[in-house]
Amino acid sequence: MASYTPPIRDMQFVLHEVLAVETAGIPGYEDLERDFTGAVLEEAGKISAEVLAPLNAVGDAQGCTLANGVVTTPEGFRDAYARICEGGWIGLDADPDYGGQGMPYLLGTAVGEMFVSANMAFNMYHGLTHGAYSTIRAHGSPEQKDMYLPRLVSGEWSGTMNLTEPQCGTDLGLIRTKAEPQEDGSYHVTGQKIWISGGEHDLTANIIHLVLARTPGAPEGTKGISLFIVPKFLPDADGNPGTRNGVTCGGLEHKMGIHGNATCVMHYDGATGFLVGKEHAGLRAMFTMMNEARIGVGLQGYAMGAAAHQQALAFARERLQGRAHGGAQAPDKPADPIIVHADVRRNLMAQKAFVEGARAFAFWGASLIDRAARADDAEAEALISLLTPVIKGFLTDKGFETAVAAQQTFGGSGYVREWGIEQMVRDARIAMIYEGTNGIQALDLVGRKLGQDGGKAVRAFFTTVAAFIEENRDDAEFARDFLDPLEAALADMQAASGYFLKQAAKHPQDALAGAYDFMHLFGHVALGLMWSRMAKAARAGLAGTAQDRDFLEAKLATGRFYMARELPATAFFRARIEAGGASVMALAPDAF
Amino acid sequence: MASYTPPIRDMQFVLHEVLAVETAGIPGYEDLERDFTGAVLEEAGKISAEVLAPLNAVGDAQGCTLANGVVTTPEGFRDAYARICEGGWIGLDADPDYGGQGMPYLLGTAVGEMFVSANMAFNMYHGLTHGAYSTIRAHGSPEQKDMYLPRLVSGEWSGTMNLTEPQCGTDLGLIRTKAEPQEDGSYHVTGQKIWISGGEHDLTANIIHLVLARTPGAPEGTKGISLFIVPKFLPDADGNPGTRNGVTCGGLEHKMGIHGNATCVMHYDGATGFLVGKEHAGLRAMFTMMNEARIGVGLQGYAMGAAAHQQALAFARERLQGRAHGGAQAPDKPADPIIVHADVRRNLMAQKAFVEGARAFAFWGASLIDRAARADDAEAEALISLLTPVIKGFLTDKGFETAVAAQQTFGGSGYVREWGIEQMVRDARIAMIYEGTNGIQALDLVGRKLGQDGGKAVRAFFTTVAAFIEENRDDAEFARDFLDPLEAALADMQAASGYFLKQAAKHPQDALAGAYDFMHLFGHVALGLMWSRMAKAARAGLAGTAQDRDFLEAKLATGRFYMARELPATAFFRARIEAGGASVMALAPDAF
Repeated sequence: MASYTPPIRDMQFVLHEVLAVETAGIPGYEDLERDFTGAVLEEAGKISAEVLAPLNAVGDAQGCTLANGVVTTPEGFRDAYARICEGGWIGLDADPDYGGQGMPYLLGTAVGEMFVSANMAFNMYHGLTHGAYSTIRAHGSPEQKDMYLPRLVSGEWSGTMNLTEPQCGTDLGLIRTKAEPQEDGSYHVTGQKIWISGGEHDLTANIIHLVLARTPGAPEGTKGISLFIVPKFLPDADGNPGTRNGVTCGGLEHKMGIHGNATCVMHYDGATGFLVGKEHAGLRAMFTMMNEARIGVGLQGYAMGAAAHQQALAFARERLQGRAHGGAQAPDKPADPIIVHADVRRNLMAQKAFVEGARAFAFWGASLIDRAARADDAEAEALISLLTPVIKGFLTDKGFETAVAAQQTFGGSGYVREWGIEQMVRDARIAMIYEGTNGIQALDLVGRKLGQDGGKAVRAFFTTVAAFIEENRDDAEFARDFLDPLEAALADMQAASGYFLKQAAKHPQDALAGAYDFMHLFGHVALGLMWSRMAKAARAGLAGTAQDRDFLEAKLATGRFYMARELPATAFFRARIEAGGASVMALAPDAF
Repeated sequence: MASYTPPIRDMQFVLHEVLAVETAGIPGYEDLERDFTGAVLEEAGKISAEVLAPLNAVGDAQGCTLANGVVTTPEGFRDAYARICEGGWIGLDADPDYGGQGMPYLLGTAVGEMFVSANMAFNMYHGLTHGAYSTIRAHGSPEQKDMYLPRLVSGEWSGTMNLTEPQCGTDLGLIRTKAEPQEDGSYHVTGQKIWISGGEHDLTANIIHLVLARTPGAPEGTKGISLFIVPKFLPDADGNPGTRNGVTCGGLEHKMGIHGNATCVMHYDGATGFLVGKEHAGLRAMFTMMNEARIGVGLQGYAMGAAAHQQALAFARERLQGRAHGGAQAPDKPADPIIVHADVRRNLMAQKAFVEGARAFAFWGASLIDRAARADDAEAEALISLLTPVIKGFLTDKGFETAVAAQQTFGGSGYVREWGIEQMVRDARIAMIYEGTNGIQALDLVGRKLGQDGGKAVRAFFTTVAAFIEENRDDAEFARDFLDPLEAALADMQAASGYFLKQAAKHPQDALAGAYDFMHLFGHVALGLMWSRMAKAARAGLAGTAQDRDFLEAKLATGRFYMARELPATAFFRARIEAGGASVMALAPDAF
């Protein structure tokens, strides 16, 4: 069965040696001393390894059950949830005015990676609560904030997001759920929502549903959608769960993975709801939740890759098959551990290079969110808005690919339940789909974000990469191993962007047909930048008095692998993009 | 639930318009008239669609059960198996001397694709029987052939292959199962085998296990392995199942997929076995079965991709979300079918281009097997030996990738059991692992096959591609769309081969570290050749009086897509290969 080792040294490396958080000039970051972040990560790691990871296979095997409208989560989930609440983990980065600990989002990201790696299905329950918290905090009335936020932050209540209906997933303009205004200012909400994660469960005293619905006479399409709070139990005047509201779970989905999380069909039958923000402004409000969720899903992607890589590495060190090329490495044993074989090593290195690069990318993204929110930095805001679809799409595609690659390291054992790795593959698969499929992310990136403000954000990204290259040119070895490949990749990205900008007006399909490739091209350049920054930090450490030289040498070696073997993919994506959309769109739908 | 539509027109196109089987000069092929192959494919398609496909989800949901040593297959499997036997499908390409129909292997491949697409788990039962038939036919004594072959060919009995033990999968030198010679010339076989597909089940009156074991005093390693027939019931003098032999199923594996197939732990407890061929020559004999199985697994890979693509295409035509860029395509409906969107189309085209290219490649491979066997052609033999790891490794990697891509077309529905597509992903995953992981295929290709006879076979492949390019240069449009990209891809492959040959002596790890990339590079060049040949055939049809011009135009359009968007991957693989093995092997095993 899969165990979990928290990657604390790796996380500290990114926080302190790469991002240099204490001196980053972001309000609140000055408190992120190494000892402090170390203590938080140690504690989160302990819960992840000792409480969450042991429940991961249990959750998969048992799943959730629905009987008489009551959803029962797998054995142990209630106790684990209580531990998470006690530790204050749900409100780690929440507003102290509502009981949160006021830590940076960045720290929540690091902790979140561990929780997801240990037990993705479990973590979704409070992950969505965090999204509900953010949405109500941004768009709710003072009374709504006072009523709901403290109870969401403490984990006493949980939150959900209700967008999808049978006839509409991506296309929210097709929503049919109705909200009829009542005399007391509330609404009666009626309709069916599907694929609602944590829509019903036994972990909390109340569940706060955020529901998209249409008011009477609302404009068609997405402009007529409003957002409502629909509590499972209507809070009484003291804020205790009171009358049972007209919302019920009509069924649980049978899914490929994340069995421990209850994915519900929700029936709203004249349920009392409360408008959040203004009428018809629901989609914008929901985007607060969705953008946060997208970054959270990107984190799931690489966190599952990280968990899977740990398993593969352990297996490759233990499993004895064959002899190393050039002579036995473990002559006292019947065979060598398979990690000695070049192709096994290739696979493990690819996993490792992705996971560590992705972690740096996700942490950097989180620091941009903090900079935007805490330092009111519009450029950081624009950059993270541009990066969000890349974080979601690229990290989940590659995270799944990494889990599949890790499964491959296991050979036949990878296909057998008991080893736990095939569950990780099944769990990781959802991240490419929900919160907007990765195709939607690509369209968001190329169709919306890329050209925004005349392409200002992407040019800022180019400048960041180019400036890093210029500043570090003087070291020939570093330039050869890192900066030259990074520069080539950047050139591919600039060419691809230029192609889109040129084609956008005349042949928009060319841009749309190449959007997915561009998302991956972008992701590789981002990881190339991250690896270059990590390598620089490692070299600085090695030039000084760093104790753990092996760790830093391994970072350098892994970075060189990424630059030599993964980053050249940018040329392939560029070639595809420049091939245009004609061949993609040539076949009529009925000619397939 | 997933349904299945047999791709008969596509298969006939490859057989008759591309491979021109009737005039190929292979003994037996002259009988493969279009009407005849059409009738066989129609019949196989009917069984696939009407009998096998409806049992696919049943098999996944029910799985196999073991009670008191008896394995029960899912409901309906017994009846379906009877139908397969009645139709003579198991012996389609088997020797008429033993009751087979004597058809070419090529026809068995076409039929096999349909059976796998419709129900992979079910098809494995008789697929392995075919392997046992081939092994005994090649290596068994006349008495063994007379006893076993007719009953395997008819499907009355089934066959298995028993290689793996807990301590040895890839490394068969570690086998511990013992075979003690008895006075009557038989052996007593004792040991444990794991992951035995169809090791025990309720479909046949007897199960014939082919078992690798060591005789007393046998040399260590693979040179000391012998092959034995161990029947579940020892046949009496009339060939009826007699005494129950000492072989039992000790457990069923819980797997990610192919639940309908019983994957067994087998205990041999002094079971009576009969030596096949010579003592210590077991591995070579088993390679007859393994080579056949590897090509069969490659077929599974693309067949699962084909099945998944069908589902995705149907879904994309039905699911309504959003509007086409540039205006509504279905203005009478609330939204357009998602197939109108560029990124959905990109994904569907990639699936289609792989599946159809892979089918042509698999059929071409099958025709080489026929040419080698029926025309005693040593060059064909050498070429298919070279191509076998590519067929296995490339087609299963890309087949799985295609199934995952098809699942993505479904959005959220792709993750829900009821739609059937997630099962295809889980089922397809095993093909990358069994019969030698794809890493082992890559090593077989680069470490063994590539340099064999001074690289004669790969040079023959180069010549085939180069000759095709030269012969068809005169058409400028064809050259631009097909031959130029093919030539570039061939140059990448030649450069990569040259790199390996140069490095082999001095830096063997460089070749081994790039083996996986080379397998994929090779696969792409092979599919590039196939698409060029298909395009040529389609153009010939269009220049003539072909009736189904839309079909031929679609082939051309799909081929152009492959050449423009998929084939350029060869440059990436070449870059990786030429990056060498240093970065792959830089980290010591304990430095990860």
